[in-house]
Amino acid sequence: MHSSARYGGLLTDKYELTMLAAALRDGTAGRRVGFEMFTRRLPEARRYGVVAGTGRFLEALGQFTFDDSSLGLLEEFLDSQTVAFLADFRFRGDIDGYPEGELHFAGSPILSVRGTFAECVVLETLLLSIFNHDTAIASAAARMVNAAGGRPLIEMGSRRTHEQAAVAAARAAYLAGFAGTSNLEAHRRFGVPVLGTSAHAFTLLHTGPDGESAAFRAQVAAQGVDTTLLVDTYDVATGVANAVAAAGPGLAAVRIDSGELAVLAQQVRDQLDRLGATRTKIVVSGDLDEYGIAALRAAPVDSYGVGTSVVTGSGVPAAGFVYKLVEVDGQPVHKRSAGKQTRGGRKQALRVARESGIVTEEVIYPAGRPPAVDAWARTLTVPLVHGGDVVADTGVAALAEARERVASGLDSLPWEGLKLAHGEPAIPTRLVGGD
Amino acid sequence: MHSSARYGGLLTDKYELTMLAAALRDGTAGRRVGFEMFTRRLPEARRYGVVAGTGRFLEALGQFTFDDSSLGLLEEFLDSQTVAFLADFRFRGDIDGYPEGELHFAGSPILSVRGTFAECVVLETLLLSIFNHDTAIASAAARMVNAAGGRPLIEMGSRRTHEQAAVAAARAAYLAGFAGTSNLEAHRRFGVPVLGTSAHAFTLLHTGPDGESAAFRAQVAAQGVDTTLLVDTYDVATGVANAVAAAGPGLAAVRIDSGELAVLAQQVRDQLDRLGATRTKIVVSGDLDEYGIAALRAAPVDSYGVGTSVVTGSGVPAAGFVYKLVEVDGQPVHKRSAGKQTRGGRKQALRVARESGIVTEEVIYPAGRPPAVDAWARTLTVPLVHGGDVVADTGVAALAEARERVASGLDSLPWEGLKLAHGEPAIPTRLVGGD
Repeated sequence: MHSSARYGGLLTDKYELTMLAAALRDGTAGRRVGFEMFTRRLPEARRYGVVAGTGRFLEALGQFTFDDSSLGLLEEFLDSQTVAFLADFRFRGDIDGYPEGELHFAGSPILSVRGTFAECVVLETLLLSIFNHDTAIASAAARMVNAAGGRPLIEMGSRRTHEQAAVAAARAAYLAGFAGTSNLEAHRRFGVPVLGTSAHAFTLLHTGPDGESAAFRAQVAAQGVDTTLLVDTYDVATGVANAVAAAGPGLAAVRIDSGELAVLAQQVRDQLDRLGATRTKIVVSGDLDEYGIAALRAAPVDSYGVGTSVVTGSGVPAAGFVYKLVEVDGQPVHKRSAGKQTRGGRKQALRVARESGIVTEEVIYPAGRPPAVDAWARTLTVPLVHGGDVVADTGVAALAEARERVASGLDSLPWEGLKLAHGEPAIPTRLVGGD
Repeated sequence: MHSSARYGGLLTDKYELTMLAAALRDGTAGRRVGFEMFTRRLPEARRYGVVAGTGRFLEALGQFTFDDSSLGLLEEFLDSQTVAFLADFRFRGDIDGYPEGELHFAGSPILSVRGTFAECVVLETLLLSIFNHDTAIASAAARMVNAAGGRPLIEMGSRRTHEQAAVAAARAAYLAGFAGTSNLEAHRRFGVPVLGTSAHAFTLLHTGPDGESAAFRAQVAAQGVDTTLLVDTYDVATGVANAVAAAGPGLAAVRIDSGELAVLAQQVRDQLDRLGATRTKIVVSGDLDEYGIAALRAAPVDSYGVGTSVVTGSGVPAAGFVYKLVEVDGQPVHKRSAGKQTRGGRKQALRVARESGIVTEEVIYPAGRPPAVDAWARTLTVPLVHGGDVVADTGVAALAEARERVASGLDSLPWEGLKLAHGEPAIPTRLVGGD
């Protein structure tokens, strides 16, 4: 495998490997350690986060190796013992954590990675890249799904983010409850439903006075009436008339991509109904975020196309996860830098709920020592990797399960926890026991 | 080549291919067209942007093909004529545009893509992904370089963005003037200098009362004194004393990653000088952005490590580029949607300067019809692709040239144009001629 592999070992900060070299040299590389991934706070005073990236991380773990080309480059600055270690590298430790799609809060012990220092430290960069990106997207997307109140959302932001990040973003948005994506590679790689409409360029290509009608007829000829015609290249009312003339009242949908969407949606709905196209749906798009989506609740909109805001995390492009050493040879460790104290020791968590299913708090406790809780409570941590072997489900079925998990997680929040406005976390986090 | 190739054809929105199918069917696919990439405004009232992505795009162009696995998936929704077209797809048109590293402003015609509608439309998603991402990073990075006033910056944000976006971000930051990156793959793929320090985990791994000193001695044993020791795991003053004790006064650098950096930097500088380590440098890091960097101008800081803010575009994660059809069969076209009018026709641009070299305006004109300008003026548009063949330099040497271009571009701005505060563009853009 060439080192340009999707998850090759060089997707790593240099210092992970120089630390490895120093630890191999002084004999500390083999110490049994625990690292933990968590976030110190929810970004932008959000009320919850949605864990995403687990499936991609578990896939990456098996591909995270160093081929000959990579090793050649590493010889520039690493000694031969370290290069030999990396040539044989395969993670053989244990990982448990929150399942993908679980909600999380500040301090939630989302991932616990245990093994030798050597094998745990080299995973840091790739692991954080995957979770910081995917969780940022899923957390923003869940807010949009909630704002849409049951109407479908389509992720169409591939062009607004790095071309490979776009594929992961499509997956994360789907996980959070989006209906599908415009991105073909996300369909191939992760089975995300792929959807599409058309662009203004296609209408403009059909020059001449009858251009828009010609474009609509061409689209219907190629795709049938189960298609979405883009009606705002010129005048929207004329566009709608042309669309129904080209496709008939059985046209699946029209899309409006600009202007005052609430007003236009009502005008278009009225016009479609007058033309007998009562079942033709209205798709809106154009710089929508969760607030724009919420503002259209009263408008006759059937679905939303969302671009920039979802693929860039709607103001929060990285989830804020860190990966910290919390345990060495069974003893808790933590640094004491100003403002960045972390609690040592391996941790697990419970989520406590009322009988109604509405959650009330997250309880974080030293691993293996769950507190007695006088209420319904669910252990959040599940095994993911054992002795280097992935023991959790991955792939399309696991993604579908994660999607269900987000939906039931959102259902379990108290209503204040679903507010879009910044504020307190939906539920408090409580630390018990420990040092 | 498997379709998971770095720049495979499926990194595309579905609608590009359904538009292609409709155009092939109605005979418009072969029309000669021009598309243009530009931004309607500079995001967040920034004063300039830095074009980045050109090198990656030119590399992508040759890899943007559809293999058998991709074609099999496309058969789900495309007719056989369209699938056959994509099986043979190779861009054979012409592209010119601003060279990589050139400054740009709102409306700058950054890329002009000409060929058949079929070959130009399928490039849209990948092209915009690359330029929107890389330009966002380079534009933010250039502001940081300017804020640092000549002190070196190290990009260390890989863990805060998608793992492949991290590689492109390292390249874009280097292009904009950063000294290097922590990302090993960016070093391998693009020749970006790779740098590294160490993490708190390495100190914590060395448990016991003498742990920090043991960690420093191990790092020096492995890397020599030409290394950077991280001194803020526990008490900074003790850390500095331990660092100089372990490495001697020839220690290359210490890093402070937390706390009130301006105060700590001065204390650490004084302490290092007292210990005779007068040439030991101070690296600071920890949630720095261009404003944080500027605020440290008076502090005795030698270099900055920058993470989240640079890889996420410092509040602007996407550059805002769009790709619009501007010409069909030699005639200008443009849509008339509310608030999104674009000017039709292929365009080029001149940048006008005083004799001192300080620029005064950007003049955009219909391609091939440059206006008479009564001042020193430079044509911004250069040939990039001719008949499908890349005619511009790419690779490591071109990246170095682009880096020079950013530096001289920043030098050419009037001083108000370098202010970090939001405001008017550094120079006005003037459209001349055209419809």
